[in-house]
Amino acid sequence: MKKLKKIILLGATGSIGKTTLELLRLQKDKFKLIGVSANTNVKKLKTIVDEFNVKYIAISDLIASKTNVFDTNLLVGEKGLNELASIKCDILVSGISGAAGLLPAITALKSGNDIAIANKEPLVIAGDFFTKETNINNTKILPVDSEHNSIFQCFDEKNRDKISNITLTASGGPFLNLNKKYFNKIKPSDAIKHPVWNMGKKISVDSATLINKALEIIEAGNLFNLKFNQIDVLIHPQSIIHGMVHYMDGSVLANLSYPNMISPLSLALSHPERLDLGLKKLDLSKIGELSFKKPDLEKFPGLKLGWEILQQPKPYSIIMNAANEIAVELFLKNAISFNQIVDLINDALQRFNFDIPRSLEDVIDIDKRTRILIKESYTGVKIV
Amino acid sequence: MKKLKKIILLGATGSIGKTTLELLRLQKDKFKLIGVSANTNVKKLKTIVDEFNVKYIAISDLIASKTNVFDTNLLVGEKGLNELASIKCDILVSGISGAAGLLPAITALKSGNDIAIANKEPLVIAGDFFTKETNINNTKILPVDSEHNSIFQCFDEKNRDKISNITLTASGGPFLNLNKKYFNKIKPSDAIKHPVWNMGKKISVDSATLINKALEIIEAGNLFNLKFNQIDVLIHPQSIIHGMVHYMDGSVLANLSYPNMISPLSLALSHPERLDLGLKKLDLSKIGELSFKKPDLEKFPGLKLGWEILQQPKPYSIIMNAANEIAVELFLKNAISFNQIVDLINDALQRFNFDIPRSLEDVIDIDKRTRILIKESYTGVKIV
Repeated sequence: MKKLKKIILLGATGSIGKTTLELLRLQKDKFKLIGVSANTNVKKLKTIVDEFNVKYIAISDLIASKTNVFDTNLLVGEKGLNELASIKCDILVSGISGAAGLLPAITALKSGNDIAIANKEPLVIAGDFFTKETNINNTKILPVDSEHNSIFQCFDEKNRDKISNITLTASGGPFLNLNKKYFNKIKPSDAIKHPVWNMGKKISVDSATLINKALEIIEAGNLFNLKFNQIDVLIHPQSIIHGMVHYMDGSVLANLSYPNMISPLSLALSHPERLDLGLKKLDLSKIGELSFKKPDLEKFPGLKLGWEILQQPKPYSIIMNAANEIAVELFLKNAISFNQIVDLINDALQRFNFDIPRSLEDVIDIDKRTRILIKESYTGVKIV
Repeated sequence: MKKLKKIILLGATGSIGKTTLELLRLQKDKFKLIGVSANTNVKKLKTIVDEFNVKYIAISDLIASKTNVFDTNLLVGEKGLNELASIKCDILVSGISGAAGLLPAITALKSGNDIAIANKEPLVIAGDFFTKETNINNTKILPVDSEHNSIFQCFDEKNRDKISNITLTASGGPFLNLNKKYFNKIKPSDAIKHPVWNMGKKISVDSATLINKALEIIEAGNLFNLKFNQIDVLIHPQSIIHGMVHYMDGSVLANLSYPNMISPLSLALSHPERLDLGLKKLDLSKIGELSFKKPDLEKFPGLKLGWEILQQPKPYSIIMNAANEIAVELFLKNAISFNQIVDLINDALQRFNFDIPRSLEDVIDIDKRTRILIKESYTGVKIV
């Protein structure tokens, strides 16, 4: 019998967690879930632990951890999460959203664990720390974000010097064909209707501003060690081609699939093997046409941030990410308009100035201070 | 200094020869042309030998070989061609069209040479002999045909059992949108106008009947060891996506490029490395739309032959290929109509019956006998 791959899943009760568990249910002869974490949802975590007979359990929230319904000692708080991440496994799935996923992901790499990373923030704000740790510990980062997963599949590291550029595709979001003059009237309820992907509110707004793609440019630059001018973005409303790698011999490799999260996740977990997921076969004749156009940077100025930030010293990606998170929050509360999201980020990038972060603690500190500074600028607005 | 890859080029004065020489001119620091062959065009061959300072020269045509304008002994006739193919090199480019390319290609493999193969006939009529020789001698066949080259780029041999199928694309030829009722009026001059590729007359007609794609189905089955039901054909008029490999995890890898011969040829010669050819970068936003539809098998019954032949014992692929060559010749001479091309092939497949070929000589014999039998059936028509 073949050895099962040991999996640790951080953020087991979230959306990446859900897809990961679906995959593990389908592939019981391939994987063994040995550790899980949740923030507060103890009840849901208990169901998961029981179903998969999980050995190591971490709960980040201190209060939630008091209600220990498990038959084992819990790993508790930020420290517990890092302890879990350092347990030897074959691959750790990092499904914790926001900056909270940063420390455990780095801890996993330091401990010699490969990681499948589903949220872009850690790679945006601390890309060089990830690169450093993978080099030191000879570990791998397997991107789960569909565009980066596609690039990963098409990127031949041995021919890196013959790769001219990569292309990330973007559906274009719900306002692709809306006249710019109506942008000021966009309501939160309009912005969270994504045409292709069914996602959370924050990422749906990012998708509507194309700032999601700006973050992906930075993520791709960090993950694949590419310069800003090696990363193109192409609007492709059908979201069938997710990413392309252009080689200098004129050949382009592309990855296609129906939009879904389980394919990229399965590739990240099973690499270099592939799995049989029994999904519906891609039929381009049923889709009929795939269309492509250049993004309109006048209409979506937030996209430009990706290329701009990738040329700037490191603190700017942290400022941009934090400012965007707060701006989206404010927009969702009707406190600022859709167009003001980018204005707020640009304002923060112009006004704030930090030293180059030398440690992860510095990164987290810059993140926190940016949020406080923006909060001070927008007094009267309640920021949670 | 890095070692130059030694190249032998069979059919140096033909169209594949021309593209190969273009590539070698661009990449003098990568390749050294050590051997060339031509059939009759001694003058053109002399220019090539002088330009590239080629050591080994073969001329197939006995009469042409009498005019030895070279400063060296010539390799002469079929025997000479095989001698050339057996000289140790890094890769032999087989650019000889038709069945004449079969023996030297197999000889090269037997001698431990990898081959880049540009014409599909040898692989169609003697696929299993190629497979056998590559297995025995641990040599490689690198397909230059753009569709198969694409599949080669996307085909992960290590995950062969997780490949559900491949897709070969077809431009659809000049009659894609012509009503079937006008097919009987198609003239040779209409059929040789190909919308995308600029090719010879024979292959242009094959492209118009879609029999070219039928041959490619058989070629792909033989090259990649696939069953008939693992090979799909998709009409894609823009000819940008050349081939796709579908994995069972829902992911599809595709190879894209502007239609050209130098990219696949360069990949075949430099594999596993890639070259910088300074070509125009693929820009899907300029193309705008890629469209796809299922092939119309009522309109193009010749395409069905691909799947049918792949399920039949070996002699049928030889009969089909030979019958098609003669049928196209007859069509180009206005001796039969466009629709009769397929009829003639089907008629030959029904009427002729041969034993399974046990040797290459058997293959060549079946090929010759098929041609004679068809000739006898169509007496009064001059077959060259």
